[in-house]
Amino acid sequence: MSESFDTHLQELRRGTIVLACLQLLRTPGYGYGLLEELQHHGFATDANTLYPLLRRLEKQGFLTSEWHTEEPRPRKFYSTSADGVRLAETLTAEWTALTSAITSLSDDTPTA
Amino acid sequence: MSESFDTHLQELRRGTIVLACLQLLRTPGYGYGLLEELQHHGFATDANTLYPLLRRLEKQGFLTSEWHTEEPRPRKFYSTSADGVRLAETLTAEWTALTSAITSLSDDTPTA
Repeated sequence: MSESFDTHLQELRRGTIVLACLQLLRTPGYGYGLLEELQHHGFATDANTLYPLLRRLEKQGFLTSEWHTEEPRPRKFYSTSADGVRLAETLTAEWTALTSAITSLSDDTPTA
Repeated sequence: MSESFDTHLQELRRGTIVLACLQLLRTPGYGYGLLEELQHHGFATDANTLYPLLRRLEKQGFLTSEWHTEEPRPRKFYSTSADGVRLAETLTAEWTALTSAITSLSDDTPTA
């Protein structure tokens, strides 16, 4: 039971990490720094989830990347592309619509 | 591009259908009636997604079902179980937390 409980929770969270990355990477950032920012904002994720997601979003054209090599340890910095900004806006609008839809459910719920 | 756009949108929506079903089935309902209710509330789903989901939620113990045979066409009615009510409450609380997290992102977004 608790395993499927967690699965449903994770399903609810999954799409929000994409939105959060696209919003935060309007300011360029690298993987570990982004992970800390996400946690600071209350998104539960980890490196094993985040790093492949960043590569996937880059492949899909929603992020761009460049290596910063002037520091002692070279880091790959990601930024949200113009398409990524559009996706973030679409996802934000969808979130608002879903929130209205969820709120409208409670109106019909019996008070039992 | 537009394909991955849709995938991200669907990822955002996926977990909300579970929450919507659990909330609506506090009043027992059958598949097709529930599908209409979901659409009325603004959840975009279809029979191919919903019916397997109902069976999965029943298998996981979040829904119970019984056949209503007094009508001309027998129908399987689903109801949210006590565990399902708890899951719905957890998902609703998580949704509220995620909404706060998403809202907090905008505070940091450059105004460009």
